[in-house]
Amino acid sequence: MRALIDDLLDGLHDIVGATHVLTRDTAGGTDLGAWENDWRRRTQGHALAVVQPASAGEVAAVVGLCAAHQGATGLSIVVQGGNTGLVVGSTPDSSGRQIVLSLRRMQAVRAIDGANLTVTVEAGCVLQTLQDAAMEAGYLFPLSLAAEGSCTIGGNLGTNAGGTQVVRYGNTRDLCLGLEVVTAQGRIWHGLSGLRKDNTGYDLRNLMIGSEGTLGIITAATLKLVPLPAAQLTAWAAVPSLDAALALLALAQRRLSAGLTGFEVMGQFALSLVARHYPQPTVPLYQATPWCVLLENSDHESEAHARAQFESLLEAALEQGCVTDAVVAENLGQARKLWQIRENIPLAQAQEGLNVKHDISIPISRIPEFVRATDALLQQAIPGVRLVNFGHLGDGNLHYNVQAPDGVDGKVFLAQHEDAINTLVFDSVSRFDGSISAEHGVGSLKVDKLGQHKSPVALDMMRAVKRALDPTNLLNPGRVVRM
Amino acid sequence: MRALIDDLLDGLHDIVGATHVLTRDTAGGTDLGAWENDWRRRTQGHALAVVQPASAGEVAAVVGLCAAHQGATGLSIVVQGGNTGLVVGSTPDSSGRQIVLSLRRMQAVRAIDGANLTVTVEAGCVLQTLQDAAMEAGYLFPLSLAAEGSCTIGGNLGTNAGGTQVVRYGNTRDLCLGLEVVTAQGRIWHGLSGLRKDNTGYDLRNLMIGSEGTLGIITAATLKLVPLPAAQLTAWAAVPSLDAALALLALAQRRLSAGLTGFEVMGQFALSLVARHYPQPTVPLYQATPWCVLLENSDHESEAHARAQFESLLEAALEQGCVTDAVVAENLGQARKLWQIRENIPLAQAQEGLNVKHDISIPISRIPEFVRATDALLQQAIPGVRLVNFGHLGDGNLHYNVQAPDGVDGKVFLAQHEDAINTLVFDSVSRFDGSISAEHGVGSLKVDKLGQHKSPVALDMMRAVKRALDPTNLLNPGRVVRM
Repeated sequence: MRALIDDLLDGLHDIVGATHVLTRDTAGGTDLGAWENDWRRRTQGHALAVVQPASAGEVAAVVGLCAAHQGATGLSIVVQGGNTGLVVGSTPDSSGRQIVLSLRRMQAVRAIDGANLTVTVEAGCVLQTLQDAAMEAGYLFPLSLAAEGSCTIGGNLGTNAGGTQVVRYGNTRDLCLGLEVVTAQGRIWHGLSGLRKDNTGYDLRNLMIGSEGTLGIITAATLKLVPLPAAQLTAWAAVPSLDAALALLALAQRRLSAGLTGFEVMGQFALSLVARHYPQPTVPLYQATPWCVLLENSDHESEAHARAQFESLLEAALEQGCVTDAVVAENLGQARKLWQIRENIPLAQAQEGLNVKHDISIPISRIPEFVRATDALLQQAIPGVRLVNFGHLGDGNLHYNVQAPDGVDGKVFLAQHEDAINTLVFDSVSRFDGSISAEHGVGSLKVDKLGQHKSPVALDMMRAVKRALDPTNLLNPGRVVRM
Repeated sequence: MRALIDDLLDGLHDIVGATHVLTRDTAGGTDLGAWENDWRRRTQGHALAVVQPASAGEVAAVVGLCAAHQGATGLSIVVQGGNTGLVVGSTPDSSGRQIVLSLRRMQAVRAIDGANLTVTVEAGCVLQTLQDAAMEAGYLFPLSLAAEGSCTIGGNLGTNAGGTQVVRYGNTRDLCLGLEVVTAQGRIWHGLSGLRKDNTGYDLRNLMIGSEGTLGIITAATLKLVPLPAAQLTAWAAVPSLDAALALLALAQRRLSAGLTGFEVMGQFALSLVARHYPQPTVPLYQATPWCVLLENSDHESEAHARAQFESLLEAALEQGCVTDAVVAENLGQARKLWQIRENIPLAQAQEGLNVKHDISIPISRIPEFVRATDALLQQAIPGVRLVNFGHLGDGNLHYNVQAPDGVDGKVFLAQHEDAINTLVFDSVSRFDGSISAEHGVGSLKVDKLGQHKSPVALDMMRAVKRALDPTNLLNPGRVVRM
C-alpha cells in the first residue's frame, strides 16, 4: 500500500508541484488542521494529502490520477474552498484515505463584462474579493453572508449559499449563468456561458450548483452583476407578532417591490442576548416588543427618494398596526450598526452557551403557525427552554435555535436533549411542508436525516444521478446522499 | 402485435376512461390532427393513441402500463400540453408507436397563497388562465409570450419558455419553486414545495424544467407571484445603431433597475414589413432609423412617478445620443398598440413569404459585433438577402431570421439555402459564445445540431442523466439528446 501511495504522491507532485502537495510526512511536519478541522470544530478529519492545483487543467489531471488509483487504494476526493461550511461537507473523514483538493490557489477574477453585466471568476476567489472587484468596476455582486471575508465563491456555488439579500437577488444559484467544471472522469466542461437564455439541453449548471462537490468540481463561474444602487437605507421596526411581521413584509413587497433587499426578523430573546453580551451598539426597541424587523431598501434614484418611500411605508405600517415603533438609519454608520446588531446574534448566543442550531425554511404564510406550534411542543418537552429565533423572514428561512433553560449548562443540555430536539423540530418542519436545510446544505451533518424528511422518489433520483455522473463514488462520498 | 396493442388500449381505458383514449379506430374516426400536427405544420406524426389523464395518479398508472408494454411493442410516450412548441418536441413521430399523453384535462389552479406569493397549478392550465387567476387575486404572474392564449404551463416548464419579461423576471425556470412529477418508472415525486430556500440535495426541479418531457412528466407546479405594479408604461425609441441600443439598455438598467420589464429591439426591415402588411397601427419613427427599441417600465409607486422616470431616462439618452427620437405611450391603449406592432413582426414576415428562422442568444456585449459579422457573411453568401432581425435585447436573445431577396419565392429560397444559412448562422453563434436555441428548446428540430454546437462533455453528461432517469428511453425518445 505504501508503494501505491508513494506512486500517487509522486504523480501529484508532477502535476501541481511538490510545494503544493501537503502531507503529515512533509519535511517539517506540516500542520493540516486548517484543512482537516471543520469550521464549527465538530469534527477533525485526517487527510491523505492536501493538493492545491492552480488551474482547471491541473484539477482535471489530479482527478484523473486519483481515479486511476482509486481501485487499489480506496481513496476519494474532498473539494474544499474557504472551509467555512456549516454541515461538515468539505473536510476529510478520519480514514486517512481522502485527498483534500483545495481550490484556494485558483482565485483570479478573470473578466468583468459591464455591458453583459457579468463577471467570470475562479472558484477559490474569496467572496469579499469578488464583491470588491465588482464594486470597483461600478457594479454590485449581491451575494452577502457572514463568512464573506473567508468563504470562496466555489464553496458558495457548491452549497448554493443564501445570506441576507436573497429576498431580492435569490440564492447563489440565481446569480450564476455558467460554470467550468471538472467531472469525476477528469474531463473539463467548459460551460462558462454568459448567456441569460440557453435552452440547448438539460440544466447541468444547476445540477452542479448545490451538489457540494459530489457530482463534479466547480473550478470557475460566470456570475451576474447588477448596477450599483444610488442609495441603500436601513430601518428597524418593532412588530407586535409574527403575523404583523408578515403583514409588514407584504406591504413592503407591494410598495418597495424589488427595492426591498433585506427583511430580517429577530425575536426578543435573541436580541436580549445581544444586549447582554454585546451592549454596544445599543439594541433599539426590543424591550417593549416580542419581535423586531430589519428592513433594507435599495433605491436606484436617490437617497431622498429612498427615505420618502421608507417613511411612507412605515407610516402606513404604523397606521395598520403591524408596526408599533420604528427608526430609519440617518446615515451609513447607523445602518451598519443596525446590521451589526443582527450579526451579533450568533455571537451572543455562543457567549450564552452551546445550543441546538437549525437552518430551516417554511412557506412564509405558515411561519407564525409553525413557530407557535413548535415553541409549544418544545416548552412541553423541556420546560424553561429558550428560543433564539431569527432569520431571513423574506425568504421563509429561520435560524430556529434552541438554548438551554436559564442556568443549565449548554454542554449538559446538548448531551441530554440534542437528538430529541432535532427530531421534534424536523418533524414539525415536515408537517409544515418545510425544509430541514434552507441555506447551509446537507454535508455529513444532515445526510442521514434526509431519509425521514425527503421524498423517497427524490432520493432515488438523486442516487441515480450520482451513480450516472460519478459511478465509482470518487467525489466527496457519503455527503449529500448515501449510496 | 394487434393483441398486445388491444391489451394496452384496454388497460388505458381502465385507467382514464374509454372516452379519454383517442385512436384513429375510435368509433366515428376521431381526427387526431390537433395532437399529431406540429404547430408550424412542419411535420405530421401518427399516434398509437392520445391518452388524456385527469390526475397525477392516472398519469403514473398510464406510464406504468406503457413501461410494462414497452418491451413487446416498442412503444414510447410523448407528453403534450398546448402543442404550440416551435421545435417539434411534443408531437408523435411517424412510427405509429407513440402514445401522446395530453395533460390538457389537468388544468386546475389548485391554490393561491398570497402571503407566500405562490400559486400551485396543474400542468394543463393555459398560461393566460393562470395570468388571469393571479390578476384576480391581486398578483402578477409575469410569464408572457405570444402563444399565451393556447400554451400550457406544463409546456412552458418543459421548454423553459422565455418571452417578453425575462429581462426582469427571468425564464420560466426562475418562476418555479416546486414540481409534481411522474417519473419514467411511473412513480409520483410530490415536490410541490413553496419554499424559496431548500438545500437538501440535488436540484431535480431545474433538471426537469427544460428537459422537454424526456426525464419525467411534470403534472403540476408551484410558481412565484409578484405584487401587481401600480403602473406600467411603454416607450418607443429610435436608436442610431445596436451599440446605441446597448448604451440605452445600460442607462435603463441603472436608472429603472428592476422597473425595466421589457427591452425589445427591432430592425428597420422587420418594421418595414409590419408597415407594409399591417399598416394599422402605424409604426412610429422607423423610417429614419436603422433600429427601434420598445421599453416597458413597471412602477410600484404611481403612473406619475413612472412617467417622470421614463422621461428623465429618455432625455438623458437623447443628450448622450444613444436615442435620436422617442415617444412614450400616453395611455394603456397606445401602449397596447406599440406592443401589437412588435407582435406583428412574426405575422408580417409570414405574409412576406417563408424564411429561415433562428432563436439565438449571444452575450449582450457582443451582439453588435455578431450582427455586423453575420450580416456580412450572409450578404456575401446570398447577395440581396434580407434580415428580419428583432428580439429580446435585454436578454441577449435575437430572432435573427433570414428572408429571401426581394422578388425571390420563399419556398425556392428555403429549398436552395436553408441548410447553408443554418450552418452559417450557427457557426457564427458558436464563434461568439452564443446559443443556437435561446428560448424555444431542442425538440427534434435541433437535436442533431447539438453535436457541433455544444460541449461533448456536456452532451455525455446529458446522456448519462437520461440513462439514469429513463433507462429504457420511454419518455420522448430522440428529443433533446440522441442516445
